[in-house]
Amino acid sequence: MGANLARNAARKGFGVALYNRHGGRTDALMSEFGHEGRFTPSKDIAGFVASLARPRAMIIMVKAGKPVDDVIAELLPHLDEGDIVIDGGNSLFSDSDRRYAALKDKGLRFIGMGVSGGEEGALLGPSMMPGGEKEAYDRIAPMVTKMAAQVDGEPCAAYIGLGGSGHYVKMVHNGIEYADMQLITEAYDLFKTVYGLDAAAIADIFEGWKSSDLDSYLIDITTDVLKKRDAKTGGALVDSIVDEAEQKGTGRWTAANALDLGVPLTGITEAVFARALSGRRKLRGEAETLLPFRAPAGSKATQADIDAVRDALYASKIIAYAQGFEQMTAASKDYGWELKLGDVATIWRGGCIIRARFLNRIRDAYKASDHIPNLVLEDYFRDAVLKAEPAWRKVVMLAVEHGVAIPAFSSSLSYYDGLRRARGPANLLQGLRDYFGAHTYRRLDEDGHFHTRWSQDGTEVRTDQPSEGGTPRS
Amino acid sequence: MGANLARNAARKGFGVALYNRHGGRTDALMSEFGHEGRFTPSKDIAGFVASLARPRAMIIMVKAGKPVDDVIAELLPHLDEGDIVIDGGNSLFSDSDRRYAALKDKGLRFIGMGVSGGEEGALLGPSMMPGGEKEAYDRIAPMVTKMAAQVDGEPCAAYIGLGGSGHYVKMVHNGIEYADMQLITEAYDLFKTVYGLDAAAIADIFEGWKSSDLDSYLIDITTDVLKKRDAKTGGALVDSIVDEAEQKGTGRWTAANALDLGVPLTGITEAVFARALSGRRKLRGEAETLLPFRAPAGSKATQADIDAVRDALYASKIIAYAQGFEQMTAASKDYGWELKLGDVATIWRGGCIIRARFLNRIRDAYKASDHIPNLVLEDYFRDAVLKAEPAWRKVVMLAVEHGVAIPAFSSSLSYYDGLRRARGPANLLQGLRDYFGAHTYRRLDEDGHFHTRWSQDGTEVRTDQPSEGGTPRS
Repeated sequence: MGANLARNAARKGFGVALYNRHGGRTDALMSEFGHEGRFTPSKDIAGFVASLARPRAMIIMVKAGKPVDDVIAELLPHLDEGDIVIDGGNSLFSDSDRRYAALKDKGLRFIGMGVSGGEEGALLGPSMMPGGEKEAYDRIAPMVTKMAAQVDGEPCAAYIGLGGSGHYVKMVHNGIEYADMQLITEAYDLFKTVYGLDAAAIADIFEGWKSSDLDSYLIDITTDVLKKRDAKTGGALVDSIVDEAEQKGTGRWTAANALDLGVPLTGITEAVFARALSGRRKLRGEAETLLPFRAPAGSKATQADIDAVRDALYASKIIAYAQGFEQMTAASKDYGWELKLGDVATIWRGGCIIRARFLNRIRDAYKASDHIPNLVLEDYFRDAVLKAEPAWRKVVMLAVEHGVAIPAFSSSLSYYDGLRRARGPANLLQGLRDYFGAHTYRRLDEDGHFHTRWSQDGTEVRTDQPSEGGTPRS
Repeated sequence: MGANLARNAARKGFGVALYNRHGGRTDALMSEFGHEGRFTPSKDIAGFVASLARPRAMIIMVKAGKPVDDVIAELLPHLDEGDIVIDGGNSLFSDSDRRYAALKDKGLRFIGMGVSGGEEGALLGPSMMPGGEKEAYDRIAPMVTKMAAQVDGEPCAAYIGLGGSGHYVKMVHNGIEYADMQLITEAYDLFKTVYGLDAAAIADIFEGWKSSDLDSYLIDITTDVLKKRDAKTGGALVDSIVDEAEQKGTGRWTAANALDLGVPLTGITEAVFARALSGRRKLRGEAETLLPFRAPAGSKATQADIDAVRDALYASKIIAYAQGFEQMTAASKDYGWELKLGDVATIWRGGCIIRARFLNRIRDAYKASDHIPNLVLEDYFRDAVLKAEPAWRKVVMLAVEHGVAIPAFSSSLSYYDGLRRARGPANLLQGLRDYFGAHTYRRLDEDGHFHTRWSQDGTEVRTDQPSEGGTPRS
């Protein structure tokens, strides 16, 4: 990915210095692509740094974690005040916060830059999410904005905010990608299991959704993947692939951060857990034997059935994005980043994995208002969800009836049903907590905190504050 | 809680030394309850330590976090080799791991002991989950087992394992408590919203469940809370309580740890998120205006309807426990604790918040087999879930139809449907990940990892290993 980013910059006319621990990699790049632009390869890190104009700007592309710290430590002795170190990997945002502060102490500038788009995006134009000092970003902006994908004449790169905010936004991007893919997977499973459709027929359905609001890169490549024939079996490739999804990272970082912030991020988190469950293949095999799955009688899928799944997918997707944007809103406030979420939607429109027509709608919403407590309440999304709602319920009920797992569809719907309840049922929960833990409750008709002396005389007493304090008790 | 634990020990015949930073608290305990046993109050920490027989054993009962470290630092200069420091608060297990190691380095012994049961349990007999060195536990076992609740002649206290394992098990206990309470809350909401029942009628239903497998402390106190009249309004107290559930702690620790371990802990996590959503009361009010909730036509609840909710609750509860026990199994392996989960079920049968008849079934399962990959596959639970399954589906569909949020009911069912599928849909997900990120996939018919050159010549190539390595890419 580093090589492709370097080629991208060179092809846009920028001079690029190269260094890789494994010199052979640099040689290979030079011999194969050296003609693409002005490269300056170096055999050692001192030479690499020396070949850059001051203030220097350099992008590190290595594995997240310790390798990033190692490279920074190697670079440090050679750097001068004002130099800019950019981490373009998938680092945890709190690591970027730490590096940002540590380099600032040394008079250096650090940019944690999320880059999405895979190998191909890196070369042809990714979505880039740089966070750090604004002035440092301004210095590299001409290069970054040219390297990025362009949509409607606008680059898919913009300054995100201070500290680790760039990597944070990239993390949430990946979390949303998890939810998006899980929803597609559930739609596929419904067509396959309830309606008995094969991969080719399902591919045609997804292809048809290209002309709907669902139009996106992930829908496009779902079509491609489902259409792909397997040279070995002659059948659909997807039918030869093991049903264990892998993961090691950004999805669960996103979910864990939502728990930290207290944001109900059900869609992404269910997607992360669905991958974990998929990984228990042996257990699933045993479970199917002991808890037999009754394959439902196959009923032919009508166009109305297909449209219903599309609507359910779209409504669930809106929820997943609304939750992700609510998480970024909370993070921006808690971490003091002042994120411009309209810019985030803008730069996700191209280059990255979740690029979609849909993001224009989010961008429009943030153009109309800076303060959006939840996207579902904004006109376009409200209308879309209300329109999809009957189909959404129908599809969830269908899946439940036929025993098809739809964790993301159904948790999104439950979130929606919980969200639009002015009076929910958590009053009972607070009553229980007061009963066993004296955690106190509030009253609808009076301010303050109250406790009922349940096991003494049963009277209600006013308390100064929740008894809980800083100690989690339950 | 500390005072009640001290009284508990004294009432069982043990000599108890007392120290509190606020001397007034000690004086108050002595003047009110000094006659209950052999107390030795101290005004300072040196006096407190000096009044203990060696090797000394002392229980710290302060807020989790820094206060625990502060008290340990205060104690240290006065302690001698072999002394035992017990933290009876709700500490994060990784803090207990750290303290265990730090005190071990100084020749001291640390026990992180989860204590559940609230104020009343602390006095009359809590469930106690001590983790640390076995020898140190053996020294305090006579006191701990006498202080604990007793069920069928067995104490609700047993040695858990090394390091922070005692606080870990207590954390999962609290997580399960979150799920249990959320399920009860969803059942209440269904009765209230779909069937139009009032608190008194719902209390009668819960009271009736006392004679079912659901029999538990939480069901008991739900009955009490729902029956409670509000002196101010004359109505049910629960109808005067604000519907915002609070939390700060162990539930989200449990969920975050499940993400760490890669265990699909959907029930507890949805319960944590449901509390977060309940806390957005203003937003929920706005949402109800914009996305109006159509209160369903009230149909009278038949006995069959009531039984169906009971069955759905029971099946979902089995899932929540199965997930929690799977998490402890994974933790035991990852952290090297060798937890005896049959003992855990045993000591949760009394004293603690989730005490329930049901735990005898879990204890029996672990008596029959040490190695249980998932409780749902064990005879009793498999039969119970299969029996409840039709009602469970019916209740989830009913809630979806009527727009009642049931995140824990429905996510548990989706988990169940995902679990008992030998062939799930994650093959598509792996195809997508290979397409955009070259993450590779495995094949059903051949070992190894494979990558399709999607945007080159479309051929499949074998790769040595997943390209992902340690870097999370998506």
